[in-house]
Amino acid sequence: MDSCRLCKEEGGALIWSGEDCRIVQVNDPGLPGFCRVIWHQHIAEMSALNHAQRHLLMRIVVDVEEVIASAMKPVKINLASLGNQVPHLHWHIIPRYEDDPYFPDSVWSEKRRDTNEVVALKRQAMAELLPVLIREKADSWTGKDSK
Amino acid sequence: MDSCRLCKEEGGALIWSGEDCRIVQVNDPGLPGFCRVIWHQHIAEMSALNHAQRHLLMRIVVDVEEVIASAMKPVKINLASLGNQVPHLHWHIIPRYEDDPYFPDSVWSEKRRDTNEVVALKRQAMAELLPVLIREKADSWTGKDSK
Repeated sequence: MDSCRLCKEEGGALIWSGEDCRIVQVNDPGLPGFCRVIWHQHIAEMSALNHAQRHLLMRIVVDVEEVIASAMKPVKINLASLGNQVPHLHWHIIPRYEDDPYFPDSVWSEKRRDTNEVVALKRQAMAELLPVLIREKADSWTGKDSK
Repeated sequence: MDSCRLCKEEGGALIWSGEDCRIVQVNDPGLPGFCRVIWHQHIAEMSALNHAQRHLLMRIVVDVEEVIASAMKPVKINLASLGNQVPHLHWHIIPRYEDDPYFPDSVWSEKRRDTNEVVALKRQAMAELLPVLIREKADSWTGKDSK
């Protein structure tokens, strides 16, 4: 698709890329640890995937959620596949904190505050560990589903 | 959990209830067809479920997406598990249209417009068919995963 941003670009800093999808980290200083899982093929909806593909994609999404939760200790994780502006299947995985710019609203809501700078820097430092931790999980996605 | 809305209430008009989760329709005149899949137990995150539970829940979410897409012909479907305000695992499944109140933003963003009243009423009428169509799918969730 010529006009699709996610067909032309990675969509963030590449962490891992497999046969069917890739994981990127989003550079948003207000939301450290924000990752996306992006399906390679230009497909709009989960229901356009077959059952094995849906299963694989959600397995990766929830495994990434688990890594982020364990490394970054957010108060909540948000998962979302919206795609109103870029209808190319991608999942947002966003660690949320009570002092983040939007909490308790969605990250697409109006900004309420800036996080304390030192706290934000500490979270950013933790977020920089995510690529290694996520890649450690990747072996379990490439073979057959063993669990 | 005494203070949790989704422990005390259905969370919408009940369409279907199984052993582990339920499906409700949300009464939002601006977003006809908006459904939720709510895990019965008070759990915050997908990664707190075991693999079979995650698989079942997402199978139901994507099947509901498929029914909504086929019956209501939206331009996009949004899926989201946020839970910042109610940290009890629930999925939003929201059909989106170019003339809905928020498009192309998230439904948690600022309202942009009202949908034409006749169009909204037609969509509401289609949304009233969803409970029957969704219940027809339910047999495939109660046995073992056969696909």
